[in-house]
Amino acid sequence: MSDKTDRVVGVLGGLGPEATLDFMAKLLERTTALTGASTDQEHLHLLVDCNPKVPNRNRAVAGTGPSPAPDLAAMARRLDAAGADLLVMACNTAHHWEADIRAATDLPFLSILDATLEALRRQAPEARTVGVLATEGTRAARLYETSLERAGYRPVGFDDAAQARFMELLYRIKAGERGADIRAAMRSLAEGLAEQGADAIVAGCTEVPLVLGPDDLSLPFIDSSLALADLTVRIAKRLQPLPAFTDNKKPTGNAA
Amino acid sequence: MSDKTDRVVGVLGGLGPEATLDFMAKLLERTTALTGASTDQEHLHLLVDCNPKVPNRNRAVAGTGPSPAPDLAAMARRLDAAGADLLVMACNTAHHWEADIRAATDLPFLSILDATLEALRRQAPEARTVGVLATEGTRAARLYETSLERAGYRPVGFDDAAQARFMELLYRIKAGERGADIRAAMRSLAEGLAEQGADAIVAGCTEVPLVLGPDDLSLPFIDSSLALADLTVRIAKRLQPLPAFTDNKKPTGNAA
Repeated sequence: MSDKTDRVVGVLGGLGPEATLDFMAKLLERTTALTGASTDQEHLHLLVDCNPKVPNRNRAVAGTGPSPAPDLAAMARRLDAAGADLLVMACNTAHHWEADIRAATDLPFLSILDATLEALRRQAPEARTVGVLATEGTRAARLYETSLERAGYRPVGFDDAAQARFMELLYRIKAGERGADIRAAMRSLAEGLAEQGADAIVAGCTEVPLVLGPDDLSLPFIDSSLALADLTVRIAKRLQPLPAFTDNKKPTGNAA
Repeated sequence: MSDKTDRVVGVLGGLGPEATLDFMAKLLERTTALTGASTDQEHLHLLVDCNPKVPNRNRAVAGTGPSPAPDLAAMARRLDAAGADLLVMACNTAHHWEADIRAATDLPFLSILDATLEALRRQAPEARTVGVLATEGTRAARLYETSLERAGYRPVGFDDAAQARFMELLYRIKAGERGADIRAAMRSLAEGLAEQGADAIVAGCTEVPLVLGPDDLSLPFIDSSLALADLTVRIAKRLQPLPAFTDNKKPTGNAA
């Protein structure tokens, strides 16, 4: 691809499929917001491997199910072969296998953890203690704890009881539920993190924004899916250069 | 792929991108409705080439712009190489180049025209005169006229003034507009077809369901995007065998 054209975005998706649709909708919304796109042709070319067959990521982190790494690496290679210029993945938990994805191709990989950290700095410059709504796999792998502590924040996560309630909500969302009770329960989990001292909330799971938005909370809400979409559009539209953390041979984030 | 597993669905999309998201959401909804899927892993594996860079289809039919055929064929080949077991395209106008897409690979191609005809028979068994909401390219190529007349229906389309109003709405929808005025104007176009004698309305453009639904009209409304999603899920989940019209070497529809 020449330096003048948009970069083709390869999306590792389907983890789950509704979260991928939400991420794609955010790519469209951010393209319109950042570039004023009003015709089909002004939008980004996306190659989306929406593969819900990938083994359950939480069970794999817990050691009770097979690793998704071979599937994730195969998806990255397929997207590379199909013509992607960069890779993103619309799932936080699966970033536990970020190193396997980076190793599978030479393409730049935009990490949702780095994108979220960037959005946190921009959206909540005063925040020091950050509450993380995330899966048990993301928590067990310490994905946000590592990323936030390295950047000087104090992460606040769920206790075991709250984590179990989150996982129950997660699987109900994946089954298509979006009712008022689910929304209230997710808001309550976020408020529990605020009570532990959080002065910003990170939605560190791409299913969370399907039932919770910034208007539901009184403190800054950083949606990891929106943060990744925003960064992806800026990079793919060449509004800013590729950040150093995207270099897949020199990972500076959790993939190291 | 073995006969026991789901077929991998290759989607030629981005024509436009919002219509592709709507089609993908309908694939999820139909999978849940037809199979009771409640986990990620029960949903279909989709490979989506969401390529809004394809040249404008209406200008190509009118002879005022380049043909999208080379891009559409390249998309089909990419999806084949990536592992798709069948192809679908979430755009009616682009079915003018169905023969080029079928010729590009050996994969079965599920035509949106055939899927819509099947849905019409099921949803409106009494209908004889069918109103078609479609682009000027779809009308000029006589895609629905040919398909409906072969099946014994009387098609009713726009006059030039109504067609011009439809195209103005289409480009406003593609620019992100979804307001009450757009919805009212689209409903008015459908009602104009009913006044010409239509006893069923086909939304023969994948942008139409973004602003018009079955509850907006008093006569049967066949959404081509939903019809294709429903057929795709039935075929990919092996709930029914591949219909003869999907054989890309023996097209029985408009591709002949």
